[in-house]
Amino acid sequence: MRTASAASAASSPKIAPPPAAPHTFDKGNLALRLGSAAAFAVFFFTLLYFGERPWAKLTWLALMAVVLVMGVRELCLIARKVGHHPSVFGGALVGGGFLLHFYLSSSAGVIATDPLPLWAVLAGGGMAIHFGALLFSKDPLENALSSQAITWMAALYMGLGTGFMVKLFMLDGTTLANSGARFILALFLIVWLGDTGAYFLGSAVGKHKLAPRVSPKKSWEGALGNVLGNLAGAFIIRTWVCTQWSVVDAIAIALLLGLVGQLGDLAESTWKRSAGVKDSNMGSLGIPGHGGMLDRVDSLVFAAPMLYAYLFFVHGLN
Amino acid sequence: MRTASAASAASSPKIAPPPAAPHTFDKGNLALRLGSAAAFAVFFFTLLYFGERPWAKLTWLALMAVVLVMGVRELCLIARKVGHHPSVFGGALVGGGFLLHFYLSSSAGVIATDPLPLWAVLAGGGMAIHFGALLFSKDPLENALSSQAITWMAALYMGLGTGFMVKLFMLDGTTLANSGARFILALFLIVWLGDTGAYFLGSAVGKHKLAPRVSPKKSWEGALGNVLGNLAGAFIIRTWVCTQWSVVDAIAIALLLGLVGQLGDLAESTWKRSAGVKDSNMGSLGIPGHGGMLDRVDSLVFAAPMLYAYLFFVHGLN
Repeated sequence: MRTASAASAASSPKIAPPPAAPHTFDKGNLALRLGSAAAFAVFFFTLLYFGERPWAKLTWLALMAVVLVMGVRELCLIARKVGHHPSVFGGALVGGGFLLHFYLSSSAGVIATDPLPLWAVLAGGGMAIHFGALLFSKDPLENALSSQAITWMAALYMGLGTGFMVKLFMLDGTTLANSGARFILALFLIVWLGDTGAYFLGSAVGKHKLAPRVSPKKSWEGALGNVLGNLAGAFIIRTWVCTQWSVVDAIAIALLLGLVGQLGDLAESTWKRSAGVKDSNMGSLGIPGHGGMLDRVDSLVFAAPMLYAYLFFVHGLN
Repeated sequence: MRTASAASAASSPKIAPPPAAPHTFDKGNLALRLGSAAAFAVFFFTLLYFGERPWAKLTWLALMAVVLVMGVRELCLIARKVGHHPSVFGGALVGGGFLLHFYLSSSAGVIATDPLPLWAVLAGGGMAIHFGALLFSKDPLENALSSQAITWMAALYMGLGTGFMVKLFMLDGTTLANSGARFILALFLIVWLGDTGAYFLGSAVGKHKLAPRVSPKKSWEGALGNVLGNLAGAFIIRTWVCTQWSVVDAIAIALLLGLVGQLGDLAESTWKRSAGVKDSNMGSLGIPGHGGMLDRVDSLVFAAPMLYAYLFFVHGLN
């Protein structure tokens, strides 16, 4: 539909002013930022502490469902900004199918009993997205292909991201009690200390651009700080939380989560950049003081499956 | 990137001349058409006859891999025609992951042993598609979101479509020998007799347009002929092939496959229409005399998982 010239013409004004990097701190609303962070922290650690209670697992599932819907909505809004017509409902429905699969497949504690198989979510999801657009979409035909594809991608991105976080929360460890909560704490601490290390080292000595096209404020020094933060997080976890991890486990997990976390951050920046958006919530509903949901979870979405895969293939947990 | 006015302006010339319906017979190359159909029939029935031999299962997997790559390529070409930059390699790679999962999960005859879990294909696929585009794509950023989404959709559409056909081929029935081959024969005969019934009844008495926007030559009379063809196919199968099916099984399978088959056909027409393409192979490499691969498999891609789901949930096969 769009000629190359039209594309470049339309895009040039977007590319000109480099948008802020996703993790730039907004000092304007620091109080609001700290307030909502504190509120989340209390809620978060309460759930982790009672991690083995069914109500805690259900509450975590509900929290992930909220994250899923907010993320799908933001991704669809970004796509609509550039003329596609993805379905927030379709994306949330199919993404919810993934989320429910991961909850049900481990709620019995046994992966073998699988009331909602992943293949059924995929087959049903394809029919829901493609047939739903065919039967109910009032949008013009021009973008049928890209709109249905973006609905699929939103469902996969947020459904798998939140689904693996549910899977991790519900994992039964072999040695330590309340293992699932320990793994979630590991995931968040390793990723968050990585973000923090990247921010401080990057803003202190950041010189060499990492990906100027995609995220102008990121530097290789920041990437190094990210890895150092990941390693610090992994060793803190190994010392006090997942004490069964070997030194090799801690290093491997830190490097793996650090790698996919940073790439995930860049990938999400690319999507925003392709739509000329700086803040994934686009100034609308977001997390008070923290902007968009996508900006908060872009690293976790890939770090969660990576941590689960390590625990599954290396430690034999499922 | 595109304004509404620009979109409608760009699209109007495409929408004006209604393209031929996907299943219109091309009398020009009838000989070539019959020739390649005959060659496929010999190959197809040989594989079905030896369906329980490992080499036949491997050959079927290889055939499905060829179908997968051709379909992914066509879908990506259609998308590239309208300015997106999906990756044929990425789509074929991740689609191949789905295909391999379905082969490996049942090659042992037991679904429990799952060397390549579906969740791993999904998690790895997301990283391959999004990180691959980030690291290796030379395409402009404008379409990063839609291009990666269409790569995902191509992988899902063809990977699941061919994957479920491999799954069906390798199913072990409870009563009859060589059940997998019987199910594949059922799938193809029910869908093909549906297409045939739609063509003849549609061209004979077709009056009331079914979906003028999407596929102008389709009529409600054709849709009825499709269902009659599906029913005829299901009862032929019940009488001589899957003799364990009850009358209810035959009717339910015919109606379910007929419904998703026709919707799948329309969905694929929508994608072609959105790009102003008539033939999914776009005049390039296709099946001699039969045009594009997508046009041949658009019904099977959704009918296969539907048949598998029926056999799994109703007959308890897996």
